[in-house]
Amino acid sequence: MVPGMSLADQPPAAVLVFQTLLVHGSLTRAEIGRRTGLSAGAVTKAATPLLADGWITELGRPAGERASGRPATPMAVRADRARFVGVKVTGDELIGVLTDLTARPLASRRAALDSRDVGTVVLAIARLIGQLRAAAGAEGDDAVHSVGVTISGDVDGQTGTVQYSPFLDWRRVPLAQLVESASGIPTVIENDVRALTVAEQWFGAGVGLSSFALVTVGAGIGCGLSIGGRVVSGAHGVSGEVGHLPVGGTDRTCTCGNTGCVETVASTHAITEQARQATGDPALTMEEAVRLAHADNAAVRAVFSRAGHVMGLAMASVANLIGPERIIISGEGAASYDLFADQIRQTFADHAFGAAADCDLVVRPLPFEEWARGGAAVAAQRVFAPAK
Amino acid sequence: MVPGMSLADQPPAAVLVFQTLLVHGSLTRAEIGRRTGLSAGAVTKAATPLLADGWITELGRPAGERASGRPATPMAVRADRARFVGVKVTGDELIGVLTDLTARPLASRRAALDSRDVGTVVLAIARLIGQLRAAAGAEGDDAVHSVGVTISGDVDGQTGTVQYSPFLDWRRVPLAQLVESASGIPTVIENDVRALTVAEQWFGAGVGLSSFALVTVGAGIGCGLSIGGRVVSGAHGVSGEVGHLPVGGTDRTCTCGNTGCVETVASTHAITEQARQATGDPALTMEEAVRLAHADNAAVRAVFSRAGHVMGLAMASVANLIGPERIIISGEGAASYDLFADQIRQTFADHAFGAAADCDLVVRPLPFEEWARGGAAVAAQRVFAPAK
Ligand SMILES: [Zn+2]
Ligand SMILES: [Zn+2]
Repeated sequence: MVPGMSLADQPPAAVLVFQTLLVHGSLTRAEIGRRTGLSAGAVTKAATPLLADGWITELGRPAGERASGRPATPMAVRADRARFVGVKVTGDELIGVLTDLTARPLASRRAALDSRDVGTVVLAIARLIGQLRAAAGAEGDDAVHSVGVTISGDVDGQTGTVQYSPFLDWRRVPLAQLVESASGIPTVIENDVRALTVAEQWFGAGVGLSSFALVTVGAGIGCGLSIGGRVVSGAHGVSGEVGHLPVGGTDRTCTCGNTGCVETVASTHAITEQARQATGDPALTMEEAVRLAHADNAAVRAVFSRAGHVMGLAMASVANLIGPERIIISGEGAASYDLFADQIRQTFADHAFGAAADCDLVVRPLPFEEWARGGAAVAAQRVFAPAK
Repeated sequence: MVPGMSLADQPPAAVLVFQTLLVHGSLTRAEIGRRTGLSAGAVTKAATPLLADGWITELGRPAGERASGRPATPMAVRADRARFVGVKVTGDELIGVLTDLTARPLASRRAALDSRDVGTVVLAIARLIGQLRAAAGAEGDDAVHSVGVTISGDVDGQTGTVQYSPFLDWRRVPLAQLVESASGIPTVIENDVRALTVAEQWFGAGVGLSSFALVTVGAGIGCGLSIGGRVVSGAHGVSGEVGHLPVGGTDRTCTCGNTGCVETVASTHAITEQARQATGDPALTMEEAVRLAHADNAAVRAVFSRAGHVMGLAMASVANLIGPERIIISGEGAASYDLFADQIRQTFADHAFGAAADCDLVVRPLPFEEWARGGAAVAAQRVFAPAK
């Protein structure tokens, strides 16, 4: 890594000052002292190398000029100090964004995938990174600091390995290293729902909350948990597997081999299958099922209602166990949320225990570009909160 | 509060040094620096008021003598600097322990409760505290620093109020203030399972784990969650309500008004009721049910097996959502764990998703004195990690 391009070697106080500025925008040294509990002297000492290295700047004075060090001079993160690329990989498309150090998007691009072969996907990612750099007029090897690639499934961010991606049918793919070799840029990878949770925590509907859950509904049903400002990753790499909570009744079998999983009733695939049975039309699509439900077809509405009930049970389980301040509902399925909403809220209210029912349920359809931005956020966070 | 009796006014670095010594025993300044990331100068600066105030001591030199400040001199927490009382309140008994600053038990006492009336219970608690002080030869108002009372139900530790205790039938009881008035000693209160989780995290089967869940089985079914060294408390005061996860089938109704809760099948009361139905004996006790099951009565064994299945589903739900390193099973019900064990492990293995099944299940019967010690641990923690 380029010298000076990481805060990993900085003392904890410097990282703390940097993170405080990142979250709260511009602050004076005195305000930083109040928020961090550091003394005035400690703030100045911590800020000095950050100023020298260009990670932060004193507002109202040109970068590079000698620091004044006065307690009342506001300081802020230099957003243009580093750029990041985030990529979300789906079964048939790549979605990429280029952001600055504060994860603000500067450009975005999509690219169709005509194969799920590892080599093809890696080359397509490298090409997309090149296009994003060109779009922003970025040049030279250090124009993009690092890349964050996100993908659904069992992703080990520490080793950079996709352990298992069901919809790409990948097992033990060292994706971070492959993308790094193909693009020449340091690369991290993360589970896509966890990356979106990082993004929501940092600059989305989770900002300032003591805890929240992000439930994504679509081809799969996932969940990211943020507790005390940290995204829960699970001791064995598994967490937030709402789709496999055993609250779905026992009549349908899951892709994981079990009965009772939420996904057997509420995934897009499960809803389509049940709507086919309900209508007797073996070729019915999800779009047609949504249309029939909107046209008040009772049998199809019952399918959505059962899915809503099971999702409500799953969200009540999350609330009873974790007690989050808010549950954010997103994913492709959120687009037809009106078909589930009443049943979700009813079942949630019935089964949330006591004050857990005070948890706020919000629906937030997010384009795939926001998911890709989650990848950039994960890459940016590694700069100032390096993985251990 | 007596001046010098709290670390609340100390800078964060001093609290960090103190906590590091509490967890790791005696350490040199250099070792503290390595573990905390503080510079040698910062460690010495942070330690000075702690030494002066008697919270920590330099090993091999009499307390009070001027600090040497040499990096190689080991320091340690002064366990006798403060004493704490922990009390667990059950429906018919109080269990109390007196501990030192490191939560080591110095004395324990029990007292029967002949009434669940608030006034009676508060006076009994105050009397028990007095007996514990006398037992340890403690005298004067500051001989016990503070008291931690733990009780099952919805307990708001911030305001010191028992919002709801089902088995005492208490609502909105300002218990902390009442005990403080009756005993003359600062008092905090906490949910009993959460307090036991604090104890397990600090000096039990949770030491050194990145995350764990403590599931208690008995009259109620509770759960404490420790993630990243913190016990999850829930944004609205509710968390760990494993007993009300909706995985229990829909044929029995819960005390909370719902069907499907784990407690409808697996609580002591539910097992007794189902065993009565299975045997046709309306006066059967839990003890008799356990005896019949041990004597291979097929109908009663099936009741325990169903309870084990539902507990296995609940633990798989915890594992799939949180991914803890370990699940510790305790509570009165753990005594007849052999009757549930096979079914719990089988169902857990079936429904834990992927690597979540690597979560370690351990059974740990703990006497009520350990639960009371959890109350003392909560009181002690307030000294160095004051509630916000
Ligand atoms: Zn499943
Ligand atoms: Zn219930």
